[in-house]
Amino acid sequence: MKKTGIQKLLIANRGEIAVRIIRAARDLGIATVVVHSDADTESRAVQMADETVNIGPPMAAKSYLSIDAILTAAKETGADAIHPGYGFLAENAGFADAVAAAGLVFVGPDGNTIRLMGDKAAARAEAEKANVPTVPGSDGVIKDMDAAAEIAEEIGFPVMIKAAAGGGGRGIRVAHDAAEFRELAPQASSEAAATFGDGGIYIEKVIERARHIEVQILGDGENVVHFFERECSLQRRRQKVWEEAPSVALNDRVRDELYRSAVALAKAVHYKGAGTIEYLYDDETESFYFIEMNTRIQVEHPVTEMICGFDLVAEMILIAGGTKMGVTQQTIRRTGHSIEVRLNAEDPANNFMPFPGIVGNLLTPDGPGVRFDHMLYPGYAVPPFYDSLLGKLIVWAEDRDRALLRLKRALDELQIEGLPTTAPLFQALLESEELQQSAVHTRWLEPWLENNLDLIKQKGAQTHE
Amino acid sequence: MKKTGIQKLLIANRGEIAVRIIRAARDLGIATVVVHSDADTESRAVQMADETVNIGPPMAAKSYLSIDAILTAAKETGADAIHPGYGFLAENAGFADAVAAAGLVFVGPDGNTIRLMGDKAAARAEAEKANVPTVPGSDGVIKDMDAAAEIAEEIGFPVMIKAAAGGGGRGIRVAHDAAEFRELAPQASSEAAATFGDGGIYIEKVIERARHIEVQILGDGENVVHFFERECSLQRRRQKVWEEAPSVALNDRVRDELYRSAVALAKAVHYKGAGTIEYLYDDETESFYFIEMNTRIQVEHPVTEMICGFDLVAEMILIAGGTKMGVTQQTIRRTGHSIEVRLNAEDPANNFMPFPGIVGNLLTPDGPGVRFDHMLYPGYAVPPFYDSLLGKLIVWAEDRDRALLRLKRALDELQIEGLPTTAPLFQALLESEELQQSAVHTRWLEPWLENNLDLIKQKGAQTHE
Repeated sequence: MKKTGIQKLLIANRGEIAVRIIRAARDLGIATVVVHSDADTESRAVQMADETVNIGPPMAAKSYLSIDAILTAAKETGADAIHPGYGFLAENAGFADAVAAAGLVFVGPDGNTIRLMGDKAAARAEAEKANVPTVPGSDGVIKDMDAAAEIAEEIGFPVMIKAAAGGGGRGIRVAHDAAEFRELAPQASSEAAATFGDGGIYIEKVIERARHIEVQILGDGENVVHFFERECSLQRRRQKVWEEAPSVALNDRVRDELYRSAVALAKAVHYKGAGTIEYLYDDETESFYFIEMNTRIQVEHPVTEMICGFDLVAEMILIAGGTKMGVTQQTIRRTGHSIEVRLNAEDPANNFMPFPGIVGNLLTPDGPGVRFDHMLYPGYAVPPFYDSLLGKLIVWAEDRDRALLRLKRALDELQIEGLPTTAPLFQALLESEELQQSAVHTRWLEPWLENNLDLIKQKGAQTHE
Repeated sequence: MKKTGIQKLLIANRGEIAVRIIRAARDLGIATVVVHSDADTESRAVQMADETVNIGPPMAAKSYLSIDAILTAAKETGADAIHPGYGFLAENAGFADAVAAAGLVFVGPDGNTIRLMGDKAAARAEAEKANVPTVPGSDGVIKDMDAAAEIAEEIGFPVMIKAAAGGGGRGIRVAHDAAEFRELAPQASSEAAATFGDGGIYIEKVIERARHIEVQILGDGENVVHFFERECSLQRRRQKVWEEAPSVALNDRVRDELYRSAVALAKAVHYKGAGTIEYLYDDETESFYFIEMNTRIQVEHPVTEMICGFDLVAEMILIAGGTKMGVTQQTIRRTGHSIEVRLNAEDPANNFMPFPGIVGNLLTPDGPGVRFDHMLYPGYAVPPFYDSLLGKLIVWAEDRDRALLRLKRALDELQIEGLPTTAPLFQALLESEELQQSAVHTRWLEPWLENNLDLIKQKGAQTHE
């Protein structure tokens, strides 16, 4: 078995990803410390961890975003490494720097890589240097509004105005003509300054019917391997709700180019850890365009694990602990098809209103090809302070048609009493012929939701019968 | 996707295997009927099935073994196929004949194959015909006690006296010398007559330190493929409690011979369906010996599914429905290592006393590489009438060492309140260095249990803290 120098891992996160990281650590024989806010004293992660430290009040700024509190907890418990999960401090370069400065191992790339890829305009430039195609747009951050308006005119409206320091779909505006552009661009810049502390914006052409495709990579600072692609085209308000691996939209030529470009970019920055390169893919022209790189584990990583058989979170920890990458590209094979759906504490029949509450009876699906990564237990009170993700239901089968049937079966088996979840949305989606054919793109889901509200309500009523 | 002619499948079984078969049917888009006794009206399988039929009182002879009641239920519900699971009527040739005579599909081989392999002495002869090595013993059923005693003397004591109509370890006696043989053989014969309705017995040499190795095969009447081996050497009273795939005891030469012999035997009988060829393996001489063939799905089939990625129960159904086998030997690959432990409603600290009761809170393990095939839900009253198997906890990892760590993690996550289970046995076993090295044989577990009762009690106390 591969060995790592890490003896005790502190998990600077909460929810299902904290549970997931505990499992990976335990599967490697590593002890765990979970830090948590006052709102999470009864969380499943806290119950599972070997040690726990309360680091402050519910508001994230005073607990999960408090670098000082987290480093103090690490010192007190003698943890020698920190896993940031996703969200919170996962892509905060200053946190990675501070962890290293404290003599601890940060499970992820170093601060400079996070900084580089976190500046979306700089990342775009880095991608171009590595010959990775990017969406037509401005060359880096916009300095001059008049010049920017000309560029927008040149690449053709509509264009997206994006915050250089943003990511994950936040702070994006769409301008349909020059007048709108001149109105929205300054607004976007001042909003970016307020939200991200950096007013830098850049522009990208809107690709009308694009799929969201991303490539999972893993690097040890020298070598980089990829674990094929995921498709995450089903989005609501730019948030992914359903993810698959592989994408059925790609042919082998596109696939090879996609992987080659992802590995080239990651190699160019001597990437260390797990990362994801995100692209838009245009079915008609068979072209893909780099959007951004996420320098952390993604919510949807399990679909990749299901088709490849690797534990990506364990691999991250091993690499951070100084293990040279044992896996070579030739040993990474994919089999079958995997789908993940995100179960949120939201009512899909009521405009996805967040609905924290107390979990009643709980019966989780199981059997071949089913995995449920969640944070639930009977009696658990979902706190209202954080995002509404309760868990991720993941299925695998030998092909996509069988994976869809298995997803239906698993959703039918799942019983979460006490609060509404997004499960009825997925039961309704499974009846869509377009979804069955994967005839979707990133703007497909929102109008479908409007047109299928009755079906979703009906599925919800059946669930709560 | 592969299609099958079967529209509605009746499941003539109960417990976790009924749940497992419902899942396979649903994953293929097939409707399900579950027949059940009065004792199982609240079972998980009954709750999950599309339709249910009460076929009689708790005693199996009046319900799960009643061919008439089951065929009537099939007729009433319009089921077109019957899956027998394991145990009960699964290896009853008369049942397979009756199902076929009623114009229904039996998910398994035909009555004649079951009959041939069910006669353990005839199966032994069939194996010899196919050049599969057998344990030194009598040539078929014993006709003459004097001649049998001579054979026993020749092959060397101790010898096992087995019922030709037996199987699964039932009705076996061991004679250590000629006098004991003459005393036990007639007893064994009359017991076999009483238990199995057939007094035929045969003898086999006892291989002192043997591993139990079995090969999973699948046939469609013409072609036969194998899905590698399982090792099930950890047994108590000849009942398997812990199973693995692959076996770490075999080298490649032995593996190849083993698979070749299993496929040869299954081909010789034009085998149709899923089956298992069981062997004893002698580490010292690197020799294997055929014991018997089971013409049904085995309890431990999931470890094979985990290393190969095939759904064996679905494959059985597809083949029974007339689908030609889509899988070829070249497409069956194995990856990693899988372990299954059997969770019984028994107290391992109290001589494995069966302990039916009401399930309280339930929290099941999950995450990468963990599967839990079970029949539990909070509030479920485990009936006292049947075997004590509650479920099977199965883990997969890239190698055996990591699978052992993952098993430990999964057992730590599992919480079944309300009744004792065999979980503490496995937590204790994980601390055994011999088990960690797989330095085991079929007689290893029983003395280990006697020597480690305190450790098992301690693990049980921790679980119930």
